[in-house]
Amino acid sequence: MNISTASGPETGALSSAAAASASAGIVPDELTPEEKDLIQRLIRARRDIRKFKPDAVPTDKLRRILEAAHAAPSVGFMQPWNFILIESLETRQQIKESFEKVNSGEKHKLEGTAKSALYNSLKLEGIMESPLNIAVTCDHGRDGAYVLGRATMPETAPYSVCLAIENLWLAARSEGVGVGWVSLLDKTAVQNILGLPPGVELIAYLCVGYPLEFTPIPLLQEIGWKERKQLDSLIFKEQWGQPAGLMLDEAPGVPPAAQTKH
Amino acid sequence: MNISTASGPETGALSSAAAASASAGIVPDELTPEEKDLIQRLIRARRDIRKFKPDAVPTDKLRRILEAAHAAPSVGFMQPWNFILIESLETRQQIKESFEKVNSGEKHKLEGTAKSALYNSLKLEGIMESPLNIAVTCDHGRDGAYVLGRATMPETAPYSVCLAIENLWLAARSEGVGVGWVSLLDKTAVQNILGLPPGVELIAYLCVGYPLEFTPIPLLQEIGWKERKQLDSLIFKEQWGQPAGLMLDEAPGVPPAAQTKH
Repeated sequence: MNISTASGPETGALSSAAAASASAGIVPDELTPEEKDLIQRLIRARRDIRKFKPDAVPTDKLRRILEAAHAAPSVGFMQPWNFILIESLETRQQIKESFEKVNSGEKHKLEGTAKSALYNSLKLEGIMESPLNIAVTCDHGRDGAYVLGRATMPETAPYSVCLAIENLWLAARSEGVGVGWVSLLDKTAVQNILGLPPGVELIAYLCVGYPLEFTPIPLLQEIGWKERKQLDSLIFKEQWGQPAGLMLDEAPGVPPAAQTKH
Repeated sequence: MNISTASGPETGALSSAAAASASAGIVPDELTPEEKDLIQRLIRARRDIRKFKPDAVPTDKLRRILEAAHAAPSVGFMQPWNFILIESLETRQQIKESFEKVNSGEKHKLEGTAKSALYNSLKLEGIMESPLNIAVTCDHGRDGAYVLGRATMPETAPYSVCLAIENLWLAARSEGVGVGWVSLLDKTAVQNILGLPPGVELIAYLCVGYPLEFTPIPLLQEIGWKERKQLDSLIFKEQWGQPAGLMLDEAPGVPPAAQTKH
Protein backbone atom coordinates (compact mmCIF):
# COMPACT_ATOMS: atom_id res chain seq x y z
CA MET A 1 0.00 0.00 0.00
CA ASN A 2 1.35 3.36 -1.00
CA ILE A 3 0.71 5.77 1.84
CA SER A 4 0.95 8.87 -0.27
CA THR A 5 -2.26 7.84 -2.01
CA ALA A 6 -4.16 7.66 1.27
CA SER A 7 -5.83 10.97 0.57
CA GLY A 8 -6.11 10.30 -3.17
CA PRO A 9 -8.79 8.66 -5.28
CA GLU A 10 -8.04 5.14 -3.99
CA THR A 11 -9.20 6.01 -0.48
CA GLY A 12 -12.85 5.38 -1.22
CA ALA A 13 -12.01 1.89 -2.44
CA LEU A 14 -10.16 0.83 0.75
CA SER A 15 -11.60 -2.40 2.07
CA SER A 16 -12.27 -2.63 5.80
CA ALA A 17 -9.35 -5.08 6.01
CA ALA A 18 -7.06 -2.49 4.46
CA ALA A 19 -8.44 0.13 6.84
CA ALA A 20 -7.69 -2.19 9.78
CA SER A 21 -4.15 -2.67 8.46
CA ALA A 22 -3.74 1.07 8.18
CA SER A 23 -4.90 1.59 11.74
CA ALA A 24 -2.46 -1.13 12.78
CA GLY A 25 0.41 1.09 11.72
CA ILE A 26 1.37 -0.88 8.66
CA VAL A 27 3.49 1.01 6.16
CA PRO A 28 5.29 -0.34 3.09
CA ASP A 29 8.84 -1.60 3.63
CA GLU A 30 10.22 1.56 2.05
CA LEU A 31 8.46 4.91 1.86
CA THR A 32 8.29 7.01 -1.31
CA PRO A 33 10.95 9.72 -1.80
CA GLU A 34 8.39 12.41 -0.90
CA GLU A 35 7.38 10.57 2.27
CA LYS A 36 11.01 10.03 3.29
CA ASP A 37 11.60 13.72 2.71
CA LEU A 38 8.71 14.53 5.05
CA ILE A 39 10.22 12.32 7.77
CA GLN A 40 13.63 13.97 7.33
CA ARG A 41 12.18 17.46 7.40
CA LEU A 42 10.04 16.75 10.45
CA ILE A 43 13.11 15.45 12.30
CA ARG A 44 15.07 18.58 11.35
CA ALA A 45 12.23 20.96 12.15
CA ARG A 46 11.87 19.69 15.74
CA ARG A 47 13.00 22.30 18.27
CA ASP A 48 13.56 22.61 22.01
CA ILE A 49 10.90 25.18 22.92
CA ARG A 50 11.02 27.64 25.81
CA LYS A 51 8.45 30.27 24.76
CA PHE A 52 4.85 29.13 24.70
CA LYS A 53 1.39 30.45 23.92
CA PRO A 54 -1.10 29.85 26.76
CA ASP A 55 -3.59 27.84 24.63
CA ALA A 56 -4.29 24.32 25.90
CA VAL A 57 -3.28 21.30 23.82
CA PRO A 58 -6.48 19.48 22.76
CA THR A 59 -6.94 16.01 24.24
CA ASP A 60 -6.96 14.23 20.87
CA LYS A 61 -3.55 15.70 20.03
CA LEU A 62 -2.17 14.84 23.45
CA ARG A 63 -3.47 11.30 23.04
CA ARG A 64 -1.71 10.85 19.69
CA ILE A 65 1.49 12.31 21.13
CA LEU A 66 1.45 9.87 24.05
CA GLU A 67 0.50 6.94 21.81
CA ALA A 68 3.58 7.68 19.72
CA ALA A 69 5.71 7.64 22.86
CA HIS A 70 4.18 4.32 23.96
CA ALA A 71 5.05 2.75 20.57
CA ALA A 72 8.79 3.17 21.26
CA PRO A 73 11.12 0.19 21.53
CA SER A 74 12.09 -0.92 25.03
CA VAL A 75 14.52 -3.45 26.43
CA GLY A 76 12.70 -6.77 26.87
CA PHE A 77 9.47 -4.98 25.81
CA MET A 78 9.59 -3.56 29.35
CA GLN A 79 7.73 -0.32 28.56
CA PRO A 80 9.20 1.18 31.73
CA TRP A 81 7.77 4.66 31.11
CA ASN A 82 5.09 6.67 32.89
CA PHE A 83 3.82 10.11 31.99
CA ILE A 84 2.68 12.52 34.71
CA LEU A 85 0.60 15.36 33.28
CA ILE A 86 1.05 18.45 35.42
CA GLU A 87 -1.29 21.41 35.18
CA SER A 88 -1.31 22.51 38.82
CA LEU A 89 0.33 25.93 39.11
CA GLU A 90 1.27 25.17 42.70
CA THR A 91 3.22 22.06 41.70
CA ARG A 92 4.84 23.90 38.81
CA GLN A 93 5.84 26.76 41.11
CA GLN A 94 7.73 24.23 43.25
CA ILE A 95 9.46 22.79 40.16
CA LYS A 96 10.28 26.29 38.99
CA GLU A 97 11.92 27.01 42.36
CA SER A 98 14.13 23.94 41.90
CA PHE A 99 15.09 25.24 38.46
CA GLU A 100 15.87 28.74 39.81
CA LYS A 101 18.11 27.30 42.50
CA VAL A 102 20.13 25.16 40.09
CA ASN A 103 20.22 27.93 37.47
CA SER A 104 21.56 30.46 39.91
CA GLY A 105 24.41 28.03 40.68
CA GLU A 106 25.07 27.83 36.95
CA LYS A 107 25.16 31.61 36.60
CA HIS A 108 27.62 31.72 39.47
CA LYS A 109 29.87 29.15 37.72
CA LEU A 110 30.04 31.32 34.60
CA GLU A 111 30.62 34.64 36.39
CA GLY A 112 33.57 36.48 34.90
CA THR A 113 33.73 34.25 31.82
CA ALA A 114 33.09 35.39 28.26
CA LYS A 115 29.78 33.56 28.15
CA SER A 116 28.32 34.93 31.38
CA ALA A 117 26.27 37.79 29.88
CA LEU A 118 24.97 35.61 27.06
CA TYR A 119 24.00 32.86 29.52
CA ASN A 120 22.19 35.32 31.78
CA SER A 121 20.15 36.54 28.80
CA LEU A 122 18.87 33.05 27.98
CA LYS A 123 15.37 31.80 28.68
CA LEU A 124 15.93 28.14 29.58
CA GLU A 125 12.46 26.87 30.46
CA GLY A 126 8.74 27.52 30.09
CA ILE A 127 7.53 25.76 33.25
CA MET A 128 4.89 28.33 34.22
CA GLU A 129 3.92 29.69 30.79
CA SER A 130 3.35 26.40 28.97
CA PRO A 131 -0.18 25.02 29.42
CA LEU A 132 1.12 21.56 30.36
CA ASN A 133 4.20 19.98 31.93
CA ILE A 134 4.91 16.27 31.50
CA ALA A 135 7.27 14.39 33.79
CA VAL A 136 8.51 11.21 32.13
CA THR A 137 9.77 8.51 34.46
CA CYS A 138 11.46 5.09 34.40
CA ASP A 139 10.14 2.31 36.63
CA HIS A 140 13.24 0.17 37.19
CA GLY A 141 11.23 -2.45 39.05
CA ARG A 142 8.61 -2.99 36.37
CA ASP A 143 8.37 -6.69 35.48
CA GLY A 144 10.29 -7.62 38.65
CA ALA A 145 13.96 -8.50 38.75
CA TYR A 146 14.26 -10.26 35.38
CA VAL A 147 14.02 -8.26 32.16
CA LEU A 148 15.07 -9.89 28.90
CA GLY A 149 18.17 -8.16 27.53
CA ARG A 150 18.82 -5.89 30.51
CA ALA A 151 21.36 -8.16 32.23
CA THR A 152 24.65 -6.33 31.82
CA MET A 153 23.27 -2.93 30.88
CA PRO A 154 20.59 -1.86 33.39
CA GLU A 155 20.81 1.63 31.88
CA THR A 156 18.89 0.28 28.88
CA ALA A 157 15.68 0.83 30.89
CA PRO A 158 16.13 4.64 31.12
CA TYR A 159 17.50 4.58 27.57
CA SER A 160 14.21 3.02 26.44
CA VAL A 161 12.35 5.90 28.08
CA CYS A 162 14.48 8.34 26.05
CA LEU A 163 13.51 6.57 22.83
CA ALA A 164 9.87 7.13 23.84
CA ILE A 165 10.62 10.80 24.53
CA GLU A 166 11.98 11.33 21.01
CA ASN A 167 8.84 9.72 19.57
CA LEU A 168 6.76 12.05 21.76
CA TRP A 169 8.79 15.06 20.59
CA LEU A 170 8.42 14.22 16.89
CA ALA A 171 4.71 13.42 17.13
CA ALA A 172 4.20 16.71 18.99
CA ARG A 173 6.04 18.58 16.22
CA SER A 174 3.77 16.98 13.64
CA GLU A 175 0.78 18.35 15.62
CA GLY A 176 2.29 21.85 15.77
CA VAL A 177 2.99 21.33 19.48
CA GLY A 178 6.31 22.33 21.01
CA VAL A 179 8.30 20.48 23.67
CA GLY A 180 11.10 21.82 25.86
CA TRP A 181 13.23 19.55 28.08
CA VAL A 182 14.20 21.21 31.38
CA SER A 183 17.36 19.55 32.68
CA LEU A 184 18.48 22.14 35.26
CA LEU A 185 16.57 20.56 38.13
CA ASP A 186 17.35 18.86 41.39
CA LYS A 187 16.17 15.38 40.48
CA THR A 188 15.55 14.26 44.06
CA ALA A 189 13.53 17.40 44.79
CA VAL A 190 11.35 16.89 41.71
CA GLN A 191 10.88 13.20 42.51
CA ASN A 192 9.64 14.18 45.97
CA ILE A 193 7.32 16.90 44.65
CA LEU A 194 5.71 14.38 42.27
CA GLY A 195 5.56 11.58 44.84
CA LEU A 196 7.61 9.06 42.85
CA PRO A 197 7.99 5.77 44.77
CA PRO A 198 11.41 4.14 45.33
CA GLY A 199 12.72 2.54 42.13
CA VAL A 200 11.01 5.10 39.90
CA GLU A 201 13.36 7.69 38.46
CA LEU A 202 12.72 11.03 36.79
CA ILE A 203 14.13 10.90 33.25
CA ALA A 204 12.79 14.11 31.73
CA TYR A 205 10.76 17.13 32.74
CA LEU A 206 9.03 18.51 29.66
CA CYS A 207 7.17 21.76 28.98
CA VAL A 208 4.48 21.24 26.35
CA GLY A 209 2.30 23.63 24.37
CA TYR A 210 2.02 25.72 21.22
CA PRO A 211 5.31 27.57 20.71
CA LEU A 212 5.59 31.25 19.87
CA GLU A 213 7.55 29.94 16.89
CA PHE A 214 9.48 26.99 15.54
CA THR A 215 12.79 28.65 14.67
CA PRO A 216 14.72 27.37 11.62
CA ILE A 217 17.79 26.43 13.69
CA PRO A 218 18.35 25.55 17.37
CA LEU A 219 18.52 28.50 19.79
CA LEU A 220 22.06 27.78 20.99
CA GLN A 221 23.22 27.72 17.37
CA GLU A 222 21.29 30.88 16.50
CA ILE A 223 22.82 32.92 19.32
CA GLY A 224 26.32 31.66 18.59
CA TRP A 225 26.68 29.62 21.80
CA LYS A 226 27.64 26.51 19.87
CA GLU A 227 28.03 25.43 16.24
CA ARG A 228 26.56 22.28 14.79
CA LYS A 229 29.36 19.76 14.39
CA GLN A 230 30.25 18.42 10.98
CA LEU A 231 28.67 15.00 10.81
CA ASP A 232 31.63 13.54 8.93
CA SER A 233 33.86 14.22 11.92
CA LEU A 234 31.56 12.09 14.10
CA ILE A 235 31.55 8.95 11.95
CA PHE A 236 34.30 6.37 12.27
CA LYS A 237 34.99 3.16 10.42
CA GLU A 238 35.74 -0.13 12.22
CA GLN A 239 37.49 1.53 15.18
CA TRP A 240 37.32 4.74 17.19
CA GLY A 241 39.25 7.52 15.42
CA GLN A 242 39.36 6.04 11.89
CA PRO A 243 37.56 8.49 9.54
CA ALA A 244 34.81 6.96 7.44
CA GLY A 245 34.56 9.78 4.88
CA LEU A 246 30.94 8.93 4.35
CA MET A 247 29.14 12.23 4.55
CA LEU A 248 28.91 15.37 2.49
CA ASP A 249 28.97 17.54 5.58
CA GLU A 250 25.70 19.23 5.01
CA ALA A 251 24.61 20.29 8.44
CA PRO A 252 20.96 19.41 8.94
CA GLY A 253 18.54 22.26 9.36
CA VAL A 254 20.88 24.90 7.96
CA PRO A 255 20.29 26.37 4.51
CA PRO A 256 23.50 26.90 2.50
CA ALA A 257 23.28 30.70 2.92
CA ALA A 258 23.24 30.41 6.72
CA GLN A 259 26.15 27.98 6.71
CA THR A 260 28.46 30.42 4.95
CA LYS A 261 27.87 33.01 7.66
CA HIS A 262 29.77 30.97 10.23
CA MET B 1 4.02 25.15 2.35
CA ASN B 2 1.93 22.03 2.19
CA ILE B 3 4.35 19.14 2.09
CA SER B 4 1.88 16.71 0.61
CA THR B 5 1.96 18.72 -2.60
CA ALA B 6 5.73 18.34 -2.94
CA SER B 7 5.31 15.75 -5.66
CA GLY B 8 2.30 17.49 -7.16
CA PRO B 9 2.01 20.08 -9.90
CA GLU B 10 3.45 22.90 -7.73
CA THR B 11 6.88 21.25 -7.62
CA GLY B 12 7.98 22.63 -10.94
CA ALA B 13 7.11 26.14 -9.82
CA LEU B 14 9.24 26.00 -6.64
CA SER B 15 11.59 28.96 -6.51
CA SER B 16 15.18 28.28 -5.52
CA ALA B 17 14.47 30.09 -2.23
CA ALA B 18 11.62 27.68 -1.53
CA ALA B 19 13.90 24.79 -2.46
CA ALA B 20 16.51 26.08 0.00
CA SER B 21 13.85 26.34 2.70
CA ALA B 22 12.76 22.80 1.98
CA SER B 23 16.32 21.54 2.25
CA ALA B 24 16.59 23.47 5.51
CA GLY B 25 14.03 21.16 7.04
CA ILE B 26 11.22 23.68 7.22
CA VAL B 27 7.77 22.19 7.62
CA PRO B 28 4.50 23.96 8.45
CA ASP B 29 3.69 24.41 12.12
CA GLU B 30 1.13 21.61 11.91
CA LEU B 31 1.13 18.80 9.35
CA THR B 32 -1.98 17.71 7.45
CA PRO B 33 -4.04 14.82 8.87
CA GLU B 34 -2.59 12.49 6.19
CA GLU B 35 0.97 13.53 7.00
CA LYS B 36 0.40 13.11 10.75
CA ASP B 37 -1.02 9.69 10.03
CA LEU B 38 2.15 8.79 8.13
CA ILE B 39 4.31 9.86 11.11
CA GLN B 40 2.16 7.82 13.50
CA ARG B 41 2.22 4.75 11.28
CA LEU B 42 5.96 4.96 10.73
CA ILE B 43 6.50 5.15 14.50
CA ARG B 44 4.27 2.11 15.03
CA ALA B 45 5.77 0.12 12.16
CA ARG B 46 9.34 0.39 13.53
CA ARG B 47 10.63 -2.97 14.76
CA ASP B 48 13.65 -4.37 16.57
CA ILE B 49 15.14 -6.58 13.85
CA ARG B 50 17.22 -9.74 14.37
CA LYS B 51 16.92 -11.46 10.97
CA PHE B 52 18.63 -9.73 8.06
CA LYS B 53 19.18 -10.15 4.34
CA PRO B 54 22.86 -9.91 3.37
CA ASP B 55 22.41 -6.99 0.93
CA ALA B 56 24.45 -3.88 1.74
CA VAL B 57 22.71 -0.64 2.69
CA PRO B 58 23.46 1.94 -0.05
CA THR B 59 25.58 4.90 1.05
CA ASP B 60 22.92 7.51 0.26
CA LYS B 61 20.46 5.75 2.56
CA LEU B 62 23.05 5.37 5.29
CA ARG B 63 23.85 9.06 4.96
CA ARG B 64 20.21 10.10 5.40
CA ILE B 65 19.86 7.74 8.36
CA LEU B 66 22.91 9.26 10.10
CA GLU B 67 21.84 12.81 9.22
CA ALA B 68 18.54 12.13 10.96
CA ALA B 69 20.42 10.94 14.03
CA HIS B 70 22.62 14.04 14.00
CA ALA B 71 19.53 16.29 13.93
CA ALA B 72 18.47 15.05 17.38
CA PRO B 73 18.24 17.38 20.36
CA SER B 74 21.11 17.30 22.85
CA VAL B 75 21.76 18.88 26.21
CA GLY B 76 23.52 22.21 25.68
CA PHE B 77 23.65 21.40 21.94
CA MET B 78 26.48 19.05 22.97
CA GLN B 79 25.99 16.54 20.13
CA PRO B 80 27.92 13.99 22.22
CA TRP B 81 27.37 11.13 19.76
CA ASN B 82 29.75 9.22 17.50
CA PHE B 83 28.88 6.43 15.09
CA ILE B 84 31.35 3.62 14.43
CA LEU B 85 30.46 1.70 11.28
CA ILE B 86 31.64 -1.89 11.63
CA GLU B 87 31.89 -4.22 8.66
CA SER B 88 34.95 -6.26 9.69
CA LEU B 89 33.88 -9.85 10.34
CA GLU B 90 36.80 -10.29 12.71
CA THR B 91 35.63 -7.42 14.92
CA ARG B 92 32.07 -8.65 14.76
CA GLN B 93 33.15 -12.16 15.74
CA GLN B 94 34.69 -10.69 18.88
CA ILE B 95 31.47 -8.79 19.66
CA LYS B 96 29.47 -11.92 19.01
CA GLU B 97 31.61 -13.82 21.51
CA SER B 98 30.81 -11.19 24.15
CA PHE B 99 27.13 -11.64 23.36
CA GLU B 100 27.37 -15.44 23.59
CA LYS B 101 29.03 -15.23 26.97
CA VAL B 102 26.41 -12.89 28.44
CA ASN B 103 23.56 -14.80 26.80
CA SER B 104 24.69 -18.12 28.20
CA GLY B 105 24.60 -16.53 31.66
CA GLU B 106 21.04 -15.43 30.92
CA LYS B 107 20.03 -18.93 29.84
CA HIS B 108 21.48 -20.24 33.06
CA LYS B 109 19.42 -17.75 35.10
CA LEU B 110 16.20 -18.96 33.48
CA GLU B 111 16.95 -22.70 33.76
CA GLY B 112 14.06 -24.54 35.33
CA THR B 113 11.63 -21.63 34.94
CA ALA B 114 8.55 -21.63 32.71
CA LYS B 115 10.19 -19.27 30.24
CA SER B 116 13.44 -21.20 29.77
CA ALA B 117 12.50 -23.12 26.61
CA LEU B 118 10.94 -20.06 25.00
CA TYR B 119 14.02 -17.97 25.82
CA ASN B 120 16.35 -20.60 24.37
CA SER B 121 14.38 -20.56 21.11
CA LEU B 122 14.81 -16.81 20.65
CA LYS B 123 17.16 -15.20 18.17
CA LEU B 124 18.36 -12.10 19.98
CA GLU B 125 20.85 -10.52 17.59
CA GLY B 126 22.01 -10.39 13.96
CA ILE B 127 25.63 -9.37 14.56
CA MET B 128 27.18 -11.58 11.86
CA GLU B 129 24.31 -11.76 9.35
CA SER B 130 23.54 -8.06 9.08
CA PRO B 131 25.69 -6.24 6.50
CA LEU B 132 26.57 -3.47 8.95
CA ASN B 133 26.92 -2.95 12.69
CA ILE B 134 26.89 0.56 14.17
CA ALA B 135 28.24 1.29 17.64
CA VAL B 136 26.79 4.52 19.00
CA THR B 137 28.81 6.22 21.73
CA CYS B 138 28.63 9.16 24.14
CA ASP B 139 31.66 11.41 24.56
CA HIS B 140 31.20 12.73 28.11
CA GLY B 141 34.19 15.04 27.74
CA ARG B 142 33.02 16.76 24.57
CA ASP B 143 33.00 20.56 25.04
CA GLY B 144 35.12 20.22 28.18
CA ALA B 145 33.80 20.38 31.70
CA TYR B 146 31.01 22.92 31.18
CA VAL B 147 27.92 21.95 29.22
CA LEU B 148 24.86 24.21 29.40
CA GLY B 149 22.02 22.39 31.14
CA ARG B 150 23.98 19.31 32.22
CA ALA B 151 24.81 20.53 35.73
CA THR B 152 22.71 18.34 38.00
CA MET B 153 21.87 15.62 35.49
CA PRO B 154 25.04 14.39 33.77
CA GLU B 155 23.00 11.47 32.44
CA THR B 156 21.39 13.92 29.99
CA ALA B 157 24.46 13.40 27.74
CA PRO B 158 23.80 9.65 27.17
CA TYR B 159 20.07 10.45 27.08
CA SER B 160 20.76 12.81 24.16
CA VAL B 161 22.49 9.96 22.35
CA CYS B 162 19.36 7.84 22.81
CA LEU B 163 17.23 10.57 21.22
CA ALA B 164 19.59 10.41 18.23
CA ILE B 165 19.23 6.62 18.13
CA GLU B 166 15.44 6.84 17.89
CA ASN B 167 15.79 9.32 15.00
CA LEU B 168 18.19 6.88 13.33
CA TRP B 169 15.78 4.00 13.88
CA LEU B 170 12.80 5.87 12.39
CA ALA B 171 14.75 7.22 9.41
CA ALA B 172 16.03 3.69 8.75
CA ARG B 173 12.46 2.36 8.85
CA SER B 174 11.43 4.99 6.30
CA GLU B 175 14.22 3.67 4.03
CA GLY B 176 13.10 0.06 4.44
CA VAL B 177 16.17 -0.59 6.60
CA GLY B 178 15.93 -2.55 9.85
CA VAL B 179 17.75 -1.89 13.10
CA GLY B 180 18.27 -4.24 16.04
CA TRP B 181 19.72 -3.08 19.39
CA VAL B 182 21.92 -5.73 21.02
CA SER B 183 22.02 -5.08 24.76
CA LEU B 184 23.37 -8.43 26.00
CA LEU B 185 27.00 -7.38 25.82
CA ASP B 186 29.87 -6.82 28.21
CA LYS B 187 30.17 -3.06 27.77
CA THR B 188 33.80 -2.88 28.86
CA ALA B 189 34.78 -5.69 26.48
CA VAL B 190 33.07 -3.96 23.54
CA GLN B 191 34.63 -0.61 24.43
CA ASN B 192 38.05 -2.28 24.38
CA ILE B 193 37.40 -4.07 21.08
CA LEU B 194 36.42 -0.76 19.44
CA GLY B 195 39.26 1.21 21.04
CA LEU B 196 37.06 3.77 22.80
CA PRO B 197 39.18 6.28 24.75
CA PRO B 198 38.49 7.05 28.43
CA GLY B 199 35.39 9.22 28.86
CA VAL B 200 33.70 7.72 25.80
CA GLU B 201 30.94 5.27 26.62
CA LEU B 202 29.15 2.68 24.52
CA ILE B 203 25.45 3.52 24.48
CA ALA B 204 24.09 1.14 21.84
CA TYR B 205 25.33 -1.63 19.59
CA LEU B 206 23.10 -1.79 16.52
CA CYS B 207 22.72 -4.34 13.74
CA VAL B 208 21.64 -2.65 10.52
CA GLY B 209 20.39 -3.99 7.18
CA TYR B 210 17.35 -5.05 5.19
CA PRO B 211 15.15 -7.23 7.41
CA LEU B 212 13.64 -10.53 6.34
CA GLU B 213 10.40 -8.84 7.31
CA PHE B 214 8.89 -6.02 9.34
CA THR B 215 6.40 -7.91 11.47
CA PRO B 216 3.10 -6.22 12.41
CA ILE B 217 3.78 -6.44 16.15
CA PRO B 218 6.95 -6.72 18.27
CA LEU B 219 8.50 -10.20 18.52
CA LEU B 220 8.18 -10.48 22.31
CA GLN B 221 4.49 -9.63 21.99
CA GLU B 222 3.99 -12.04 19.09
CA ILE B 223 5.47 -15.01 20.94
CA GLY B 224 3.55 -14.24 24.11
CA TRP B 225 6.60 -13.27 26.20
CA LYS B 226 5.01 -9.96 27.15
CA GLU B 227 1.83 -8.00 26.46
CA ARG B 228 1.73 -4.37 25.47
CA LYS B 229 0.61 -2.38 28.51
CA GLN B 230 -2.54 -0.33 28.39
CA LEU B 231 -1.42 3.23 27.86
CA ASP B 232 -4.09 4.59 30.18
CA SER B 233 -2.49 2.75 33.09
CA LEU B 234 0.79 4.58 32.45
CA ILE B 235 -0.56 8.12 32.50
CA PHE B 236 -1.00 9.98 35.75
CA LYS B 237 -2.38 13.42 36.58
CA GLU B 238 -0.51 15.89 38.81
CA GLN B 239 1.07 13.19 41.02
CA TRP B 240 2.36 9.64 40.74
CA GLY B 241 -0.54 7.16 41.00
CA GLN B 242 -3.44 9.51 40.20
CA PRO B 243 -5.19 8.17 37.07
CA ALA B 244 -5.60 10.67 34.26
CA GLY B 245 -8.27 8.75 32.30
CA LEU B 246 -7.03 10.34 29.12
CA MET B 247 -6.66 7.48 26.69
CA LEU B 248 -8.94 5.14 24.84
CA ASP B 249 -6.62 2.21 25.49
CA GLU B 250 -6.01 1.35 21.90
CA ALA B 251 -2.69 -0.41 21.89
CA PRO B 252 -0.54 0.95 19.07
CA GLY B 253 0.32 -1.41 16.27
CA VAL B 254 -2.45 -3.88 17.06
CA PRO B 255 -5.52 -4.10 14.84
CA PRO B 256 -8.82 -4.53 16.73
CA ALA B 257 -9.10 -8.19 15.66
CA ALA B 258 -5.72 -9.04 17.17
CA GLN B 259 -6.52 -7.18 20.38
CA THR B 260 -9.57 -9.30 21.11
CA LYS B 261 -7.41 -12.44 21.09
CA HIS B 262 -5.65 -11.37 24.27
